[in-house]
Amino acid sequence: MAVLLESLFDELPPDKSIDTKTFLENVSHIPSFFDCLGSKVFTVIKSDINGNITKIRGVYVKDPAKYATLQDILVAEKEAHGAEWPSVGATLALMWLKRGLRFIQVLLQSLADGERDENNPNLIRVNVTKAYESSLKKYHGWIVQKVFNAALLAAPYRSNFLKALSKGEEVTEEDCLANVRHFLVNYSSVVDAIYEMYTNLNAELDYTV
Amino acid sequence: MAVLLESLFDELPPDKSIDTKTFLENVSHIPSFFDCLGSKVFTVIKSDINGNITKIRGVYVKDPAKYATLQDILVAEKEAHGAEWPSVGATLALMWLKRGLRFIQVLLQSLADGERDENNPNLIRVNVTKAYESSLKKYHGWIVQKVFNAALLAAPYRSNFLKALSKGEEVTEEDCLANVRHFLVNYSSVVDAIYEMYTNLNAELDYTV
Ligand SMILES: CCCCCCCCCCCCC/C=C/[C@@H](O)[C@H](CO[C@@H]1O[C@H](COS(=O)(=O)O)[C@H](O)[C@H](OS(=O)(=O)O)[C@H]1O)NC(=O)CCCCCCCCCCC
Ligand SMILES: CCCCCCCCCCCCC/C=C/[C@@H](O)[C@H](CO[C@@H]1O[C@H](COS(=O)(=O)O)[C@H](O)[C@H](OS(=O)(=O)O)[C@H]1O)NC(=O)CCCCCCCCCCC
Repeated sequence: MAVLLESLFDELPPDKSIDTKTFLENVSHIPSFFDCLGSKVFTVIKSDINGNITKIRGVYVKDPAKYATLQDILVAEKEAHGAEWPSVGATLALMWLKRGLRFIQVLLQSLADGERDENNPNLIRVNVTKAYESSLKKYHGWIVQKVFNAALLAAPYRSNFLKALSKGEEVTEEDCLANVRHFLVNYSSVVDAIYEMYTNLNAELDYTV
Repeated sequence: MAVLLESLFDELPPDKSIDTKTFLENVSHIPSFFDCLGSKVFTVIKSDINGNITKIRGVYVKDPAKYATLQDILVAEKEAHGAEWPSVGATLALMWLKRGLRFIQVLLQSLADGERDENNPNLIRVNVTKAYESSLKKYHGWIVQKVFNAALLAAPYRSNFLKALSKGEEVTEEDCLANVRHFLVNYSSVVDAIYEMYTNLNAELDYTV
């Protein structure tokens, strides 16, 4: 994730359109985030997110000019798939991907804001739980929620997580959090813009897995 | 899984060598087994197993003559990878795949043998737990074991599972179990032969994930 903090997302243009090629390059560093969590339990999540990115890239490379922005993809797929849409193609992949991105956004923001369990200051469970509740919980049935609760026990200590975020750099905790805040600026605008686009295009679904 | 019961594994030759091409064709129907479990929770397991099969096929197609049997693959990879082996390539993929195959073998055998929880005769938890304990538990750390316990709650009812196994056919429960027994004959010999090969070649590892 040193790699993540070093790979800042590009700033959005005023119309908030998201350039597909840039987006794909920016998110390609995201799966490595899950290595920072330090347990093999998270490998399956990493693959799920990798799968989303591969799906979107697969659509993009078929016609880079036609799919220049993420919005172009959604609009074209709506046109092409009729009633099946939005439960299809890159529209579906990005629908799920954005939830994982939001999870990361809220987790990092909560750490940057200094939110902590005062009784367990070196645990990040409260931050992870907050991130989960703001992003994914509502799309998970009770069994996957139980799986989440089990997986939460594999969450790293705060100090180890921050160290992993800064891998390869000798930085203090304060410097690491400053990097996180810096990373979050453009990252959060991009994630927020994707959510807005799903609302505007009526592309959001709320079934549970 | 109608597809599974209809796709019998081929009989082993007397020397118990396993033809790679036939094996790949036979196991290609296995991932659909997880659809019989009837919950999306199992999608991640299906992908993991699919990944194993893809990895083995990827090695095979590079030189079908050289990799004619599964044993040929293990021996060639041992030669090629030195100290890294067996934690590498198709050897690693088959090491994990065989555990999933053993899981299925023990689960089906336990159902065929009529093992039941007399207090909950329409649940298959006792069969699933037995299968897990004989195949995977020892390779899972306590967190993944907890995840398994949560996922167990998504296991289907016995009657629904047997119906799913016979999808597309109108069969009685007794006929379905007869099909299962028939399927298990060659299937079990193949799985047992893979285990034997890992023991003989000293290719087994016992780390946990
Ligand atoms: C043997 C012991 C183990 C037993 C079994 C364990 C089972 C565990 C289940 C764990 C769940 C893991 C998380 C994965 C969940 C996914 O199901 C969901 C939904 O995934 C989407 O489903 C879709 C299916 O849709 S449908 O056809 O319309 O139904 C698509 O397949 C889509 O892929 S696509 O690119 O092809 O479009 C796919 O991402 N994924 C998520 O929930 C995202 C998870 C991100 C996690 C972020 C971080 C959490 C960190 C936790 C830390 C404690
Ligand atoms: C957001 C909420 C969710 C939070 C997170 C949930 C996390 C859930 C974790 C669930 C675990 C799911 C099961 C998958 C487990 C896998 O980790 C293991 C090990 O997998 C192997 O790891 C290896 C890594 O090895 S290492 O590099 O040496 O470490 C390889 O990657 C190998 O792939 S290979 O082809 O490339 O070689 C790969 O299969 N797989 C299994 O345990 C097999 C599972 C089969 C399940 C059978 C049926 C269970 C059914 C349960 C029913 C109740």
